[in-house]
Amino acid sequence: MTTAASSPAYRRLSVEQRRVQLIDAALSLFAHRSPKDVSLDDVAEAAGVSRPLVYRYFPGGKVQLYEAALGSAADELKLCFAEPQHGPLTERLASALDRYLAFVDTHDAGFSALLQGGSVVETSRTSATVDGVRRAAAEQVLLHLGMTDSAGPRLRMMVRTWISAVEAASLIWLDEGKQPPLPELRAWLVDHFMALLIATATTDPRTAAGTREALALESADGAAGALARRVVPVLADAAHLL
Amino acid sequence: MTTAASSPAYRRLSVEQRRVQLIDAALSLFAHRSPKDVSLDDVAEAAGVSRPLVYRYFPGGKVQLYEAALGSAADELKLCFAEPQHGPLTERLASALDRYLAFVDTHDAGFSALLQGGSVVETSRTSATVDGVRRAAAEQVLLHLGMTDSAGPRLRMMVRTWISAVEAASLIWLDEGKQPPLPELRAWLVDHFMALLIATATTDPRTAAGTREALALESADGAAGALARRVVPVLADAAHLL
Repeated sequence: MTTAASSPAYRRLSVEQRRVQLIDAALSLFAHRSPKDVSLDDVAEAAGVSRPLVYRYFPGGKVQLYEAALGSAADELKLCFAEPQHGPLTERLASALDRYLAFVDTHDAGFSALLQGGSVVETSRTSATVDGVRRAAAEQVLLHLGMTDSAGPRLRMMVRTWISAVEAASLIWLDEGKQPPLPELRAWLVDHFMALLIATATTDPRTAAGTREALALESADGAAGALARRVVPVLADAAHLL
Repeated sequence: MTTAASSPAYRRLSVEQRRVQLIDAALSLFAHRSPKDVSLDDVAEAAGVSRPLVYRYFPGGKVQLYEAALGSAADELKLCFAEPQHGPLTERLASALDRYLAFVDTHDAGFSALLQGGSVVETSRTSATVDGVRRAAAEQVLLHLGMTDSAGPRLRMMVRTWISAVEAASLIWLDEGKQPPLPELRAWLVDHFMALLIATATTDPRTAAGTREALALESADGAAGALARRVVPVLADAAHLL
């Protein structure tokens, strides 16, 4: 994070570097206050620059700066799920979630404020940006399942609802003083995905095919193996259902 | 739904009946148009009353009417998950989801617009109302699990993320021309809940205790039995994980 201390007002920065610096300053302020309580003066102070300079970069004022900050956050979040296409699915999801949750952890209250618009801009424009992140994340997950083209509507809905669940869990996690610890939350979200994938596979042949391939790549000493062994005792009393 | 045809302008209605009639008219308009594209004139016309009458009931204009409509929708949605506390959990969830999804089906685009604020009111106030619905639904689900007091944070988070997933699935369902048919969507959301409950039970002893009791009430010919039998072949190739 760029602060006044590390970047004197008139350090020479390229136009793009300066833009990034101002957006970073805004994002860091949003992390502790609602966007509607952050003024351009605050951003200028945090970035160690003059107010006119902030206006030169964002002549549309606070709304333009907010939209730029949201756009920047969206770009970063979209990259979270981009992960090399090899290895067990659970490991890829864990890496992606580690990046996503690190973003949530860093931006804190600003993450909720960004997602909810913070009352400074038209909801429809904000919603479109946020929805774009969700769709991009869902596409990445389908890519990890090797099913960008072959996924049917049921699997697409499943992945998109899981993305929503990740977002909801992140907001609850922030709301509850960042409990449980991040590695636990991440492991639970991976288990959540696998459980949902298997439940969906039971009624959707295309999901079943993708699930079979995904499970073949998992190993007994990985997250899927651990989940499988932990499920056995929970279901021990459910023999009457078979 | 009350329309101009069924309710002549000056039919005698009590203050409360008239208020409900105007809110119903607004909700029915929101079902096909964004709240920001609905004027008080439109509401007056749909309700078959004069514009001054609409203003007498909602002197705050469109924003007040919108908030009243959102409040009315919220009250109705909160009731969806109130269900007698007996019988298998999957049957209770299915009944609750049938009511919730019927609301989504009836209010259509208005459901998304209501959830997203439709750019007519401060996001923070709208968010609080919508969040109240989610919390109330989560409390009802915990009641069905017999765990309103004993639920730990993990189970609470699980139930709240499932509620978010139900909401996300409803919005996707509307977006995709109401596919799959409602009974299929409802059955999938019940499977989703059971899969998530079992996955969460594997790492949370309190959830495990609640899950054991819930599974004991399920029968082989119910939704949990059907899910259990469908899971077996999906996991047939996963013996290497155990």
